[in-house]
Amino acid sequence: MDHDIFGEFREYSVAEFFKKNRQMLGFSGKVRSLTTIVHEYATNSLDACDEARILPEIEVWVAEEGEERYRVKVRDNGPGIPEKLLASALATMLSGTKFNRYVQQRGQQGIGATGCTMYALITTGQPVKVVSKHKGTAIKCSLGIDFKQNRPIVSDLIKEDCSPDDHGLEVEGTFADVKYEKSGYGVGEYLKRTAIANPHATIIFNSPEGERFTYPRSIDAIPRKAREVQPHPLGIGPNDLLDLTKGKYESTKLSSFLQNEFTRVSLNKVKELQELVPEVDFNMKPSELTWEQAEKLVAAFKKVKWIAPETDSVVPISTSQIEKSLRNILNPEIVYVTERPPKIYRGGIPFVVEVGIAYGGDVNKDKEGKPASGGVVMRFANRAPLLFDAGGCAITQTVKDIDWKRYELRNFDDEPVALLVHVVSVHVPYTSAGKQSISAEDDLVDEIRNAVMEAGRQVQRHLSGKRKEKEKVSKKAAILRYVNQISGDLSELADEVKKKEKLRANLEKMVQERFE
Amino acid sequence: MDHDIFGEFREYSVAEFFKKNRQMLGFSGKVRSLTTIVHEYATNSLDACDEARILPEIEVWVAEEGEERYRVKVRDNGPGIPEKLLASALATMLSGTKFNRYVQQRGQQGIGATGCTMYALITTGQPVKVVSKHKGTAIKCSLGIDFKQNRPIVSDLIKEDCSPDDHGLEVEGTFADVKYEKSGYGVGEYLKRTAIANPHATIIFNSPEGERFTYPRSIDAIPRKAREVQPHPLGIGPNDLLDLTKGKYESTKLSSFLQNEFTRVSLNKVKELQELVPEVDFNMKPSELTWEQAEKLVAAFKKVKWIAPETDSVVPISTSQIEKSLRNILNPEIVYVTERPPKIYRGGIPFVVEVGIAYGGDVNKDKEGKPASGGVVMRFANRAPLLFDAGGCAITQTVKDIDWKRYELRNFDDEPVALLVHVVSVHVPYTSAGKQSISAEDDLVDEIRNAVMEAGRQVQRHLSGKRKEKEKVSKKAAILRYVNQISGDLSELADEVKKKEKLRANLEKMVQERFE
Repeated sequence: MDHDIFGEFREYSVAEFFKKNRQMLGFSGKVRSLTTIVHEYATNSLDACDEARILPEIEVWVAEEGEERYRVKVRDNGPGIPEKLLASALATMLSGTKFNRYVQQRGQQGIGATGCTMYALITTGQPVKVVSKHKGTAIKCSLGIDFKQNRPIVSDLIKEDCSPDDHGLEVEGTFADVKYEKSGYGVGEYLKRTAIANPHATIIFNSPEGERFTYPRSIDAIPRKAREVQPHPLGIGPNDLLDLTKGKYESTKLSSFLQNEFTRVSLNKVKELQELVPEVDFNMKPSELTWEQAEKLVAAFKKVKWIAPETDSVVPISTSQIEKSLRNILNPEIVYVTERPPKIYRGGIPFVVEVGIAYGGDVNKDKEGKPASGGVVMRFANRAPLLFDAGGCAITQTVKDIDWKRYELRNFDDEPVALLVHVVSVHVPYTSAGKQSISAEDDLVDEIRNAVMEAGRQVQRHLSGKRKEKEKVSKKAAILRYVNQISGDLSELADEVKKKEKLRANLEKMVQERFE
Repeated sequence: MDHDIFGEFREYSVAEFFKKNRQMLGFSGKVRSLTTIVHEYATNSLDACDEARILPEIEVWVAEEGEERYRVKVRDNGPGIPEKLLASALATMLSGTKFNRYVQQRGQQGIGATGCTMYALITTGQPVKVVSKHKGTAIKCSLGIDFKQNRPIVSDLIKEDCSPDDHGLEVEGTFADVKYEKSGYGVGEYLKRTAIANPHATIIFNSPEGERFTYPRSIDAIPRKAREVQPHPLGIGPNDLLDLTKGKYESTKLSSFLQNEFTRVSLNKVKELQELVPEVDFNMKPSELTWEQAEKLVAAFKKVKWIAPETDSVVPISTSQIEKSLRNILNPEIVYVTERPPKIYRGGIPFVVEVGIAYGGDVNKDKEGKPASGGVVMRFANRAPLLFDAGGCAITQTVKDIDWKRYELRNFDDEPVALLVHVVSVHVPYTSAGKQSISAEDDLVDEIRNAVMEAGRQVQRHLSGKRKEKEKVSKKAAILRYVNQISGDLSELADEVKKKEKLRANLEKMVQERFE
């Protein structure tokens, strides 16, 4: 029996795992696969530019090379990647600078670009071609993956000098099992929405049909840099706490560890904690903390009143910029954008929800001005659009569960309304590595609901004001229609026909004043 | 700049990755997390029993231990796990016997049970306790994970002799951040549906509320063993082909490689292929095959007429057993279950779709016999129920897209109908490691649609028969109401009042004959 059912036990590399489970990285469906490729590269470019404080200029080319076979090239003006890291960044799974950093960024898992290299290899056998210009050196090479070892295969490496002012990354790959489509799921829509959420970036898209779409930046300011922050004690689990004690603070006490490692933990707060859990020795070494003690500490965290985490770890797009984007692109009758303080969810992770609502005007009209579709929900996470997996996304579900009738919108799906929902966080809880759908964490769902309802109320105020105004106008018109008749009748009854005009003028004045 | 933005580049273990992305393994939401734990253990138990040809007996205990803190124990009568593999199977990510095997099984990724160990560790700090009785030896131990290394931590190991007849695995863990609920997403519903799809298993569930639910097996036959099979040439990609050539067949020719490595490739078929791609030398070593040659071969594969893949690689539950299950549990008015030949999707992967439809009777009635809900879709993959992520699942989407009015069901959501959809395959394309949702592969969606429509037509036939029968009955009743009047009137007109009764009898006979 051993031989039959236990004989083939072995371990697999994470590269082999994702090769077999490519759909987990967003490579399922031909249209989606192409959008995923552009998404991964564009996301990395925007992150790199923001990190290096460069106003991003990103150009994307998609060219048809055969049946369901396309060449994709993405070029940015970012800092480039130094030689020693290039192969890891683009051809090794789970490696990168981003993993486990406590800072808001679009990518966060060290998989994306390597996933694209993988997809090129398994659909066309072609490694990706890379040109990285970094600090006066231009590196050109081809990158493949040794799947069994999860190691990069570098070939055709050329190293040249270049001007230090000439910097950036260019990646080019040939992919099959992909399809270009001009739909809400295509590369075009993806880049348009990327432009909406990144008004500081210039984005150019060269389509396979020879069109060239340019979204020039509408502001010249680089967004405030998202600061890497310490975790907040609220919501941290015992496991996170124990993780933080590892390998550090050998010579410090638990009390200083707590102050050093967490945000908002002052000496006074430590004293409060000490009173709550007198059985824990705050002079102990942090590394000696047991699970039981960690559990007690975490329970105590929840009893203390904390200041909310710093806001500078999350950088919203901002009310004014979202409003500008929505006005420019949708030309609506009204726009309202929320401005809400950051909240935290599981593990003391700060996040902000921004909701923009655009109603009426040209919203959801087609090029000829005819209504093309009803309510649209545009989902974003850390300035990246989410086009797929809407069904399983906390944003979609929350919007669906709202009773839109309360907001004078009889049926969200039939109204000329566009809702932008943007979740910003140092760690967005995606439901899968494909990063297209947000997990329904309770705190997150609550905040999304509240923000959408706030936006909804503004639309309601506008619509109910409009409705009342309309009612008032028609009421006034109705009354005015009688004024003439009444003034005639009254003057005749009073045998003062000459006074009719004066009477009418007086009555009209009354009505006008009443309906002012 | 280097220091700032590239300084922290490092590689992460797959265990660290999933620890940070627990929601990818189904650990999102407290209710779902508990169901995921039971799902992973029960799935492994059923797979192990089937593999070892043992009629499964699985008992599950869920006990409340504190606020959102439960102890879960799962015991089976399977073959147990030998000592040398125990720690890898339950405390190492991406290791196991199942990965990359070309055989139908419930689990397939070597993550599930290790994910549960991970969840116990990060929510309560407790390793899981295991008792494995395998071939006369009982191993007891506790298992934790070294996340940085993705290595097991074994403690409290005790090894004892036991009777060789006493075999099986018992796993017990304590988990927090979980919640027991009696809903469609809870452990109870999960195990009930598991029983529906596994009529050869006895499943017992001891709930935290002290109830004991027993689902005894309804058949004593172990399902035919799913055979590990070779891939089918249809749909195989060049990359899969090149993968198969690696490390093997050093002394054979391409022509024999093709015959040995694929199903349905005979010498005649190789000759056909040779004529289609004369530029490929079929005497070459398989390991020398280039990407271009592989691409040409794959293109040629698609031009040849192949016999469908063997059916014994996929084992459906079977029409009669599904019908039995649905009748027993739902007591419907009618049941219809499809019986369709296997199909293949991407990569020549065989699959079968089984659809059972139950209509009327007690379907979707509550305990008091009142209609409790409208149409229900029960999704299964390789005999495991899928309870979550319905929105993103190919099954749900396909069912939703069907025009149910055509099948005399005005609105699927309001009708007393239960639809069972079971996808069986050597490799089910899940959308995420949480394995709750099936990716919308074109071939799969087509087959699901066709199978559901086939089942729909049976319901339609039944309903339209019923409708016509009803129309006929009411028409007959209407005509009969006139017979008495007419026979009276006619007999009076003809001055033959005595003949009224005879006339009436004749007319009635006519009507009865007409509506027979």
